[in-house]
Amino acid sequence: MRNFKITLEYDGASFCGWQSQGQGERTVQDELEGVFLKIFKKPVKAVASGRTDSGVHARGQVVSFKASTRMKALEIKRALNGHLPPDIAVHEALEVEEGFHAQYSVKEKTYRYTILNRPWRSAFLRDRALFYPYPLNMSRMRKAAGYLIGRHDFKTFQAHDPERSERRTVRTIKNIVIKRDGELIHVDMTADGFLYKMVRNIAGTLLAVGSGHLAPKEMPGILKARDRKKARDTAPAHGLCLMRVQY
Amino acid sequence: MRNFKITLEYDGASFCGWQSQGQGERTVQDELEGVFLKIFKKPVKAVASGRTDSGVHARGQVVSFKASTRMKALEIKRALNGHLPPDIAVHEALEVEEGFHAQYSVKEKTYRYTILNRPWRSAFLRDRALFYPYPLNMSRMRKAAGYLIGRHDFKTFQAHDPERSERRTVRTIKNIVIKRDGELIHVDMTADGFLYKMVRNIAGTLLAVGSGHLAPKEMPGILKARDRKKARDTAPAHGLCLMRVQY
Repeated sequence: MRNFKITLEYDGASFCGWQSQGQGERTVQDELEGVFLKIFKKPVKAVASGRTDSGVHARGQVVSFKASTRMKALEIKRALNGHLPPDIAVHEALEVEEGFHAQYSVKEKTYRYTILNRPWRSAFLRDRALFYPYPLNMSRMRKAAGYLIGRHDFKTFQAHDPERSERRTVRTIKNIVIKRDGELIHVDMTADGFLYKMVRNIAGTLLAVGSGHLAPKEMPGILKARDRKKARDTAPAHGLCLMRVQY
Repeated sequence: MRNFKITLEYDGASFCGWQSQGQGERTVQDELEGVFLKIFKKPVKAVASGRTDSGVHARGQVVSFKASTRMKALEIKRALNGHLPPDIAVHEALEVEEGFHAQYSVKEKTYRYTILNRPWRSAFLRDRALFYPYPLNMSRMRKAAGYLIGRHDFKTFQAHDPERSERRTVRTIKNIVIKRDGELIHVDMTADGFLYKMVRNIAGTLLAVGSGHLAPKEMPGILKARDRKKARDTAPAHGLCLMRVQY
């Protein structure tokens, strides 16, 4: 058996997330494993760096899999791109050492939350950015985000789910960069790991700060409370994109 | 009756073009006139600067219409954006003088043809750029494009269609700007008017030049021939976008 690592992008709009649902729901994992079956002529399991939820995009999702094949990594990449549907594309395929595991070997991940901040909605970004037509104060958002950087218990920002909530809720956020690019605002968060819906719950809380509904200095108390009810609404899935996974 | 001018964008991927087909096909005109009926309580005809074909996008399509209403232009804009589907968005609505006509008053139009020029396809740009994975020589393309600038008979670049081909085929191309933006190549063409499929036929011919299948110096002969067979294949619709219309 050889071990492979692929980097791929997908437009999450038409997927019920990464993870196979076994219910006839369209998922990235099912599409990928369906093509593995075509190429390798036997079932091959795709392990992602982590699940992405329904509607969430990826520009740099990483997947590992084991297969007995004589194909070169580049040939696998070409075969995948030849068979995968148009809303999934493979950037890179590499053969890696046996011990590499797309989920367990993760060092850090970067997610981007994108906000379209202009007075009218966009036909082109409707599935790719949160439309927010009111003013947002970037320096307030940056100040609030600053309190989250470092090693903290992020239980406040974890959504409840019997399958996906974790008991160990301490994570280290390396960086949160908030920048404006014309009518878009990008919030880039890098951490050693994220809890369930953590990025979207932080993004929703930063929006409340940027719009003036919450003061930046309330952030430390919200964080310390370890109580989901203290944070603000979860920002919608379609503004979120998994940008990079580092190993 | 008051006269209005609106500027709108649409993602052409799910439309059979601008023009009403009367066949149950989804068109931008039908969607817009459907919303006019809701807002104004009577049929109002939408006149566009020109048709766009199935799959072609618009960032700055202009539409004029006459309606007897007490609504302010800004209220009309808001009502339109409230009722239109997510793949159409109105940027601006203005009340204009009686003589303004979105089609007949056009001074010039700018179309953009976008090429994704990298080795792997994109999940995000699949409906918005032509994927071309081989090298393209920009200076050859610019040289060939230079021969087209000015007042010429562009019959060579007009597609045959009993309804849409025109007998008067002289047009003035003001400018063709070819620039690279990372992995994208944009070909921006501005003219006083374009013949049926003219932008896509020019784009297809410029691709043949960029890829080395045609020499730039063959362009004047192709133009002079007034013969569609001398130009190269029509570039696909999904790379094309109507950017601006000037009056």
